[in-house]
Amino acid sequence: MSVTNLSSPRQEPSSQLATATPDPNWLRRGVSEIFPDQPDSSNPEENLEKLLKMTNRPLRIKFGIDPTGAEIHLGHSIPVRKLRAFQDAGHKAVLLIGDFTARIGDPTGRSEVRRQLSAAEVAENAKNYLDQVRPILDFAPDKLEVRYNSEWLSKLDLTKILELLSTMTVGQMLAKEGFAERYEKENPIYIHEFLYPLVQGYDSVALEADVELGGTDQKFNIAVGRDLQRHFGQKPQFGVLLPILIGTDGNQKMSKSLGNQVGLLEEPLLMYSKLEKTPDHLLKDYFELLTNLPLDGLPETPRDRQKLLALEVVSQYHGKEAAQNAQKAAMSLVQGNTADTSAVPEFSLSQIKFPAKLFYIVSASGLCPTSSEARRQVQGGAVKLDGDRLNQVDLIFNSPDELDGKVLQVGKNKFVKLVNGNG
Amino acid sequence: MSVTNLSSPRQEPSSQLATATPDPNWLRRGVSEIFPDQPDSSNPEENLEKLLKMTNRPLRIKFGIDPTGAEIHLGHSIPVRKLRAFQDAGHKAVLLIGDFTARIGDPTGRSEVRRQLSAAEVAENAKNYLDQVRPILDFAPDKLEVRYNSEWLSKLDLTKILELLSTMTVGQMLAKEGFAERYEKENPIYIHEFLYPLVQGYDSVALEADVELGGTDQKFNIAVGRDLQRHFGQKPQFGVLLPILIGTDGNQKMSKSLGNQVGLLEEPLLMYSKLEKTPDHLLKDYFELLTNLPLDGLPETPRDRQKLLALEVVSQYHGKEAAQNAQKAAMSLVQGNTADTSAVPEFSLSQIKFPAKLFYIVSASGLCPTSSEARRQVQGGAVKLDGDRLNQVDLIFNSPDELDGKVLQVGKNKFVKLVNGNG
Repeated sequence: MSVTNLSSPRQEPSSQLATATPDPNWLRRGVSEIFPDQPDSSNPEENLEKLLKMTNRPLRIKFGIDPTGAEIHLGHSIPVRKLRAFQDAGHKAVLLIGDFTARIGDPTGRSEVRRQLSAAEVAENAKNYLDQVRPILDFAPDKLEVRYNSEWLSKLDLTKILELLSTMTVGQMLAKEGFAERYEKENPIYIHEFLYPLVQGYDSVALEADVELGGTDQKFNIAVGRDLQRHFGQKPQFGVLLPILIGTDGNQKMSKSLGNQVGLLEEPLLMYSKLEKTPDHLLKDYFELLTNLPLDGLPETPRDRQKLLALEVVSQYHGKEAAQNAQKAAMSLVQGNTADTSAVPEFSLSQIKFPAKLFYIVSASGLCPTSSEARRQVQGGAVKLDGDRLNQVDLIFNSPDELDGKVLQVGKNKFVKLVNGNG
Repeated sequence: MSVTNLSSPRQEPSSQLATATPDPNWLRRGVSEIFPDQPDSSNPEENLEKLLKMTNRPLRIKFGIDPTGAEIHLGHSIPVRKLRAFQDAGHKAVLLIGDFTARIGDPTGRSEVRRQLSAAEVAENAKNYLDQVRPILDFAPDKLEVRYNSEWLSKLDLTKILELLSTMTVGQMLAKEGFAERYEKENPIYIHEFLYPLVQGYDSVALEADVELGGTDQKFNIAVGRDLQRHFGQKPQFGVLLPILIGTDGNQKMSKSLGNQVGLLEEPLLMYSKLEKTPDHLLKDYFELLTNLPLDGLPETPRDRQKLLALEVVSQYHGKEAAQNAQKAAMSLVQGNTADTSAVPEFSLSQIKFPAKLFYIVSASGLCPTSSEARRQVQGGAVKLDGDRLNQVDLIFNSPDELDGKVLQVGKNKFVKLVNGNG
């Protein structure tokens, strides 16, 4: 199956993945668990490293996504980067779009996660997803297969579904993390929820997956896939589990709702500014999970490691030149010097009706999500114009000319360059 | 949907059901439970009696059978008789053949109950079933609809099945009798078992049933049908639960494996002989469940009640004349008089190679299921020929002429008349 040819609106990045010398330990780098895994066993069937050495065909590496339309951040990139590592080692990435269940949603209407999507929404979300992971994956047709599970799930009948359900007991299913606690607390578990792990497992059968990638929370589902493959006479897949990334706050799982995320679509300067402040204790994980750089050759000082990390990750998504410009701009801005603003995203003042108050401009430019947040930031002294702090919420600008070409800044890492035109 | 026109090989019985004056209490006669049932409620929606009075259309009365090919006995006849009572009150019997699940069997292969059947076996079993219940039901096309659930179940897809499953929680399903004990004892419950009650319930949706009949063990499944009908915007069916019949031993549920059954296909004399020995404490139940006779006009002595019961039930399945002949023959035989053998089933001696030993003839004639059982019966003194006890297992008969026209008897109620020819 071929992939929709998506034009990339961004500068083609020169990803480290494509150019770095392969890490001989690429398979286990940043991996939480590979299962089954018996390195001492003489049975090559149970050891993925041996299989990789012995095989004379490209393995099929499954990674499934829910086409929910979410913006992807560096946390999401981890399994996708591992998928790329398999591609670079000669194997085939099989990207599974879970369109069938997305189109059903949750029949009870209770789940936020399983919102019902139209076929058009699914297609749009899948396209957006592929756009976002384009800098990570190798999109050559022999390296990537994109599949939609409606292809086989829409054909399942009652006979087959009874067969799927008959491969597991209620006790086994209730032992699954999540179900166990809910059952214990007498929170209702609807029976159709038991079908989802089996359906995900059946995807592995349909795709004839050799390996499935997923977060550590996917172990149960990937193991169900193994059981079903065995049931249908296939060799069971290996599971490769990747860790959950801690966000830039250094404490919690990276998540948009916590505001500690770095989105793959963020502008180079914003991305750079966030990453160059990566907390010290996260640096090793970030290098291991987000770059291919050798971990034993990193700079000595934490500051230099932060800068290298930021430069490296921005390069992956925006190319080396944009990353270097972002680094220069960030250094200037931190020093209060706004002379080099070439890497700063622009905001067109034509969208604002003058005269306009400062807090309104801060909000309208997208630096703050709401007007009230913009007021707070101005009052708190976090807003600067070309490096000068402005703390009068109701400061009035009469004409765009007063702002043209200046850099408006909130806090340490949010910037826009105001331009008088359709910038 | 019309019914296959099945020729009845037996004499057409003059069933009491068709001729008796309708019992004004026919609905509740012999019923364990009707649900929902709020006789005091002013809400006619919740009361079947009121619905029956108010309706201006025939109600659709569902009764489902598994086409397992089992021989039907009087215990099985109870819901079928209730179905006939609904027919006589102007309603439509909807006989559901569960062919779909019978053709699947149990995917785990663990269940004896859900043996996998071929389409031909299902058709044959359904025909045999209909043959056996022919004396009970009114087979007029406007009175009886025979349906096969493959009609709708073969069209169910994953979307619909997820919807069915989503109508119930795991906790609700585990509360079902049978599941609860097994879960408690940590005996495995396979997840597909959760689908069967929902599939049976969905049959009620597909059939738009107003009432479902079943044994008392069917309450949960019938209630699931109500929930699903409500879910799909239909008025939920009423459940009419019928008791389990105690067998002729007076102790245990009637069952072929316990040998305490009276089969609907049994010869008049055998049926009569069993029923005229119905234990005293069962007589009231038998009259209530197996006849339409008014319960307040029964004979005074137990012996007379036994004889009336036997005569009445045999009449239903074999007609009045055959029943009267059976009564006469039974009385003669009990008195050791084998003169009147017109009602005794015949066995052709042409099937036996002479010379032949007694135990072999007893077994070959069908009076005992195995040769070893025949030996035991002869040795135990239970075998008579024309009233004379024979207890030599190896007694040899040299020619069929020695036996022609004689009655061979095992115990008190198994007889055959041996005939020299293709009787």
